[in-house]
Amino acid sequence: MTASPQRVTMAAIAAAAEVSVPTVSKVLNGRGDVAAETRTRVESALGEMGYARSYRRKTQPARIIDLLCHELSPWAAEIISGASAVALAAKSRIAVTAVSDDAGVDLWLKSLAASRTDGVILVLTELSPPHRNRLAALQVPVVIVDPVGRPDPEVLTIGAANWAGGLAATEHLLRLGHRRVATITGSPAVPCSQARLDGYRAALERAEIDFDPDLVKTGDFHYQSALAAALELLRLPDRPTAIFAASDVQAMGVYEAARQNGLRLPEDLSVVGFDDVPMAQWVSPPLTTLRQPLAEMATLATKTLLAGGTMGLQNRVELATTLIVRSSTQALSRPAARKRSRA
Amino acid sequence: MTASPQRVTMAAIAAAAEVSVPTVSKVLNGRGDVAAETRTRVESALGEMGYARSYRRKTQPARIIDLLCHELSPWAAEIISGASAVALAAKSRIAVTAVSDDAGVDLWLKSLAASRTDGVILVLTELSPPHRNRLAALQVPVVIVDPVGRPDPEVLTIGAANWAGGLAATEHLLRLGHRRVATITGSPAVPCSQARLDGYRAALERAEIDFDPDLVKTGDFHYQSALAAALELLRLPDRPTAIFAASDVQAMGVYEAARQNGLRLPEDLSVVGFDDVPMAQWVSPPLTTLRQPLAEMATLATKTLLAGGTMGLQNRVELATTLIVRSSTQALSRPAARKRSRA
Repeated sequence: MTASPQRVTMAAIAAAAEVSVPTVSKVLNGRGDVAAETRTRVESALGEMGYARSYRRKTQPARIIDLLCHELSPWAAEIISGASAVALAAKSRIAVTAVSDDAGVDLWLKSLAASRTDGVILVLTELSPPHRNRLAALQVPVVIVDPVGRPDPEVLTIGAANWAGGLAATEHLLRLGHRRVATITGSPAVPCSQARLDGYRAALERAEIDFDPDLVKTGDFHYQSALAAALELLRLPDRPTAIFAASDVQAMGVYEAARQNGLRLPEDLSVVGFDDVPMAQWVSPPLTTLRQPLAEMATLATKTLLAGGTMGLQNRVELATTLIVRSSTQALSRPAARKRSRA
Repeated sequence: MTASPQRVTMAAIAAAAEVSVPTVSKVLNGRGDVAAETRTRVESALGEMGYARSYRRKTQPARIIDLLCHELSPWAAEIISGASAVALAAKSRIAVTAVSDDAGVDLWLKSLAASRTDGVILVLTELSPPHRNRLAALQVPVVIVDPVGRPDPEVLTIGAANWAGGLAATEHLLRLGHRRVATITGSPAVPCSQARLDGYRAALERAEIDFDPDLVKTGDFHYQSALAAALELLRLPDRPTAIFAASDVQAMGVYEAARQNGLRLPEDLSVVGFDDVPMAQWVSPPLTTLRQPLAEMATLATKTLLAGGTMGLQNRVELATTLIVRSSTQALSRPAARKRSRA
């Protein structure tokens, strides 16, 4: 009970195994250029002489951050990309798990409990309370990126300025002369959707435009519901000339609804998205959108975990969103207004 | 030199540390519910009694597969998603690294050399010969998913049936009555581009349509070059009525070129992509494309590595591609033909 494993030196191991110190070092660093017989001798000496803890540390120097996401959406891909860049520079790793349901989260928690991890980044809607408790029991630092779930004061969260983003998107459309501006929201249960919608309402209020509940459709961040919502909006007798969608994927649903109605973008309808995933540059026309600093959010999350899981005084950080103007928005044109009133 | 670390039992450790066997088990499994002082005592006993190797194995039961990709494209995201599903079921992990240049690969190789890994999945264009040698020196099983690099008979590779895909894409357009069918290829240096182009040529030959070199434009799998190539194709005096793009992202460039020319899809121009990334369903109109079985390719790669890195008798597996017909292709219409001849 009195031996202190940490005090065993590499020189002592080398002497016991009858090899050179560099050879011990190679074994400790997991290098391939050591003969199997020599490696076995060194490993025996390491084991026998109680080098255990240091050995373990040396052969697994790479810290591991586990990232859990709900499907590998373009949005999640951006987060992974940012986290991976930080991990690479810090000689650490990002272990990615994409789950589609609670059974997946269950499996992941089991796997995590049996493994070493240096921290967890959650990129997903919400953990169920039992899952949250099981994760807490593992006593691993956790950061949630853009929690669309209920904010938890006990957990570090990093998100984007959603209200300001909703405001900027809507003000952009109002500046272009649009007065019938509709919005398709994200899932209503989650705070970021509410914040974006409130930003939209605030912009209308500032411009002294009456809020028209017919112009607000509830979505769920996905394509299909946005397509259905946009088709409804375009059927209104006094249809909107501009639509703010709460995600880029939802904006794609608006594009398709416009096409099915024979409307051209941006001539007949302006569209603003939210996220600025890579796809936003590739769709036709290229999408005007609110850029979420996804890579920066991921960078901050990863650095926080690699530093031990504290961000400083506060448990919630919001990074700014930026309006990226591309080709899906334009000033309200006479033909668009005419086409609308003829409808 | 005569001690055999593996023969130390948990009961012996428990006795030495004056704790119960379940407590030793908890420490070995990295559980959090052990008092710090108890944990230290157990770890000392483990170290002293030469439990080192087993200990290491027990606290890191999760195998790790390192996946390296070149940017986190929608294509790479699909592969990661598939690999993650297999890893989750096998209580293993996929460590994802996205690199954008050779310096990134360099860093990744350094990090890999210093860590434990159970296998490597390469999802990227090509490793430089020095990088390839350094990876080989690590003596870790490697699988390349859809190598766009020169096939290496020494390395396991999993890809899609590219030639058959090019053939199916072109035959689909020919069946719809198109005769002026253009193609925008992937990077010419890589075999899958050549295979897709050869499939295109074979379809024309079978239909006894003369190959017109003006209708073949060289791309690089990315958006910008495809947009430029499509703009050139649409400026031809006898412009194509259909374009087969060698990737879905390239098809997006064709969509934008059509829009800039005031052409409607699919009325004035039919477009076929290649890959079937999720985005293909969301663009407007939804894209007809050749589905690469990306998840299946990733599944096979991951299972192969978890099984020790052998696929059986052959070192190259090709999985079938499937034509997915959506709304970007339609039968050659009189108006489209007229519009073309007027141009």
